[in-house]
Amino acid sequence: MKAEIITIGDEILIGQIIDTNSAWIAEQFNLSGIEIYQITSVHDDSDHIMEALKNAEEKVDLVILTGGLGPTKDDITKHTLCEYFNTKMVFHEPTFEHIKQRFKNRNIDLNKLNRDQALVPESCTVLPNKAGTAPGMWFEKNDTIFVSVPGVPFEMKYLVENEILPRLQNNGKTKAIFHKTVQTQGLPESMLAQRIENWENSLPKNIKLAYLPNPMSVRLRLSAMGSDLNELKRQVQDEIERLKQLIPDHIFGFDNETLAEVIGKMLLEKGQTLAVAESCTGGYISHLITSVPGSSGWYKGGTTAYSNEIKQNLLGVSVESLEKHGAVSEQVVREMATGARNKLNADFAVATSGIAGPTGGTEEKPVGTVWFAVAGPGNTVAEKFVFGDNRERNIIRSSQTALQILRKTIITL
Amino acid sequence: MKAEIITIGDEILIGQIIDTNSAWIAEQFNLSGIEIYQITSVHDDSDHIMEALKNAEEKVDLVILTGGLGPTKDDITKHTLCEYFNTKMVFHEPTFEHIKQRFKNRNIDLNKLNRDQALVPESCTVLPNKAGTAPGMWFEKNDTIFVSVPGVPFEMKYLVENEILPRLQNNGKTKAIFHKTVQTQGLPESMLAQRIENWENSLPKNIKLAYLPNPMSVRLRLSAMGSDLNELKRQVQDEIERLKQLIPDHIFGFDNETLAEVIGKMLLEKGQTLAVAESCTGGYISHLITSVPGSSGWYKGGTTAYSNEIKQNLLGVSVESLEKHGAVSEQVVREMATGARNKLNADFAVATSGIAGPTGGTEEKPVGTVWFAVAGPGNTVAEKFVFGDNRERNIIRSSQTALQILRKTIITL
Repeated sequence: MKAEIITIGDEILIGQIIDTNSAWIAEQFNLSGIEIYQITSVHDDSDHIMEALKNAEEKVDLVILTGGLGPTKDDITKHTLCEYFNTKMVFHEPTFEHIKQRFKNRNIDLNKLNRDQALVPESCTVLPNKAGTAPGMWFEKNDTIFVSVPGVPFEMKYLVENEILPRLQNNGKTKAIFHKTVQTQGLPESMLAQRIENWENSLPKNIKLAYLPNPMSVRLRLSAMGSDLNELKRQVQDEIERLKQLIPDHIFGFDNETLAEVIGKMLLEKGQTLAVAESCTGGYISHLITSVPGSSGWYKGGTTAYSNEIKQNLLGVSVESLEKHGAVSEQVVREMATGARNKLNADFAVATSGIAGPTGGTEEKPVGTVWFAVAGPGNTVAEKFVFGDNRERNIIRSSQTALQILRKTIITL
Repeated sequence: MKAEIITIGDEILIGQIIDTNSAWIAEQFNLSGIEIYQITSVHDDSDHIMEALKNAEEKVDLVILTGGLGPTKDDITKHTLCEYFNTKMVFHEPTFEHIKQRFKNRNIDLNKLNRDQALVPESCTVLPNKAGTAPGMWFEKNDTIFVSVPGVPFEMKYLVENEILPRLQNNGKTKAIFHKTVQTQGLPESMLAQRIENWENSLPKNIKLAYLPNPMSVRLRLSAMGSDLNELKRQVQDEIERLKQLIPDHIFGFDNETLAEVIGKMLLEKGQTLAVAESCTGGYISHLITSVPGSSGWYKGGTTAYSNEIKQNLLGVSVESLEKHGAVSEQVVREMATGARNKLNADFAVATSGIAGPTGGTEEKPVGTVWFAVAGPGNTVAEKFVFGDNRERNIIRSSQTALQILRKTIITL
């Protein structure tokens, strides 16, 4: 099956936003056995959209339109679709009910623009959008399927994952594919590749491996293609068991699991609790933890001790340590961890102190230097890392590293 | 002048890389008054490239091709260009000298693939590539200009900045465009649209307005086209002044400014400091603040008081208030703010307490209910909002709302 992605919106053509939607869609569709023939970005202009639809219809079996759906009046996509499919706009009651409910939950009054979002071309199948107000739309013309989704990434992703791909699979347009992603932490991509080289080379021909690095972790995605889904699952599981032997410490989870989720499960099981004391990570560790639903069951809370005054007053770090060793030191980070553990009355506490940058480094402690400590029952461990000079990446990497040290500490205790 | 960007390469169409080149080119060209009509991504396939060239030639005055140039054998772009422009490949001595020199400097031996990089279509003007080995190429056919540049971002940027834009400006091909983005907070897209409808409808014809919503804010982008850049700037500034009258409280900044940056500037100017006390936002406010370089100059730190115990111990919230009103209440959030202001010894403190979801709501306090308070010199304000049922979005929206209330409080005090 061949597909074309058409993105609608001036913001891409003036370079204000980078088109990340198309890369995501292309990846998902390729993994499902659908080849992306072309990606075309066009203006919020009816003639231009019509022309792109016509060109695409001649060449592909599936057209995915993103963008151009929303409550403001620069939206012309729906009217253009009516014209292209020779149909008229009708009021779609279930969509209106959904919009009303969303607004009611937020205590906001509906206006005419919101009501207009419930208007859809009569000949389309409406794809309910639980992630937003503008519904997706599915059209068929001759032998080509056209789907239209909003450009807001999480709404687009919701519709592709929950409405579009399942429908294509049910229609037998795609073959059986099984993906599983292994989450690893603590080995850079090149070192990881070296460690698992033999395993990678011995994978069966129907299993493809992809390295998906991001600042948080290196993910390894195994994609198996075949005819029997259960057989594919078994095959992938066997390969993962072999992989676990090679990098036992570095695999922390699977698919979309986060380190904080994995830590939360371990703590809940043991009935233990956690506190954090952050300096250079500035609240990001706490954010990663509290992004996990139900984290209040095992997370007591934390402090962002940005100034030395707060390190002393809230965490009980000693003036002597701060003066003698400086805030970015093993001594201080250990006192931050034990202080947080005591003051917040938790079983474990993790602490960070470092120089996120872009300035503030010295010869002895360059930008990117970060000390970590984890205080647990009966023991405190500390470790130093030196990252790069990008503030944003240093905050993210330091936060992940802190959670990884915490995970290993919980396992061994 | 109208242009089309054609990117060549399978890596974009399988979603392996995100096409950042096109956004960069689009931004540069728009700033030079060249409108990007369309962006098209095609496969490394001669027929496909030929078809894209033909379609573009019919519609635009300038075609920018990126990618498909390099020493490896999957490069078919140059041969396709020879075919399209009905010319033949010739050896270009200056390019070969340049390649030889680069290799000599790096002590690497030349191979046949490197020598082939000096082959170019006879009818093109060669654009010397000081940032790499593959040269850029400039063709003219009928009234359309075609330029071809490598896909490696810094080589592409070098050629656009040093060879292509200067040539277009010398040819008098560009007009003036000016963009400015207004950052707003606190009004959903549809309400904002209603508030500014008359202003929007009365904009001069040469100014276009675009709504760019994201979970953090709704951005309004004004794009003015004309002949005199200074006149355009003045025109846009006039319209922004009129807009400010309509939504004075909701505009917090311009272009890529964040709320935390704006707050930091105000505090630095006044020599004042900030602390936060977070419950449902779980550290995200602190993260937004500490993402600003230099925030240690005005941010003291904060607490994530996830459990009631921490609210009492670290912030001094009273047991009575917690028992009588519950953690999500005006009384408690006020005590959190004043407690943080005192304990962290700051001029301002902002506090949040709410139900991020997906569970934990009650009939009286549904998921998405969030109380905010800001304690400042001599005064504490509190406000309640009810957001939706998505945990991630509730955390982001609550954090932005907290910063917006803080900004307004700092201004009025």
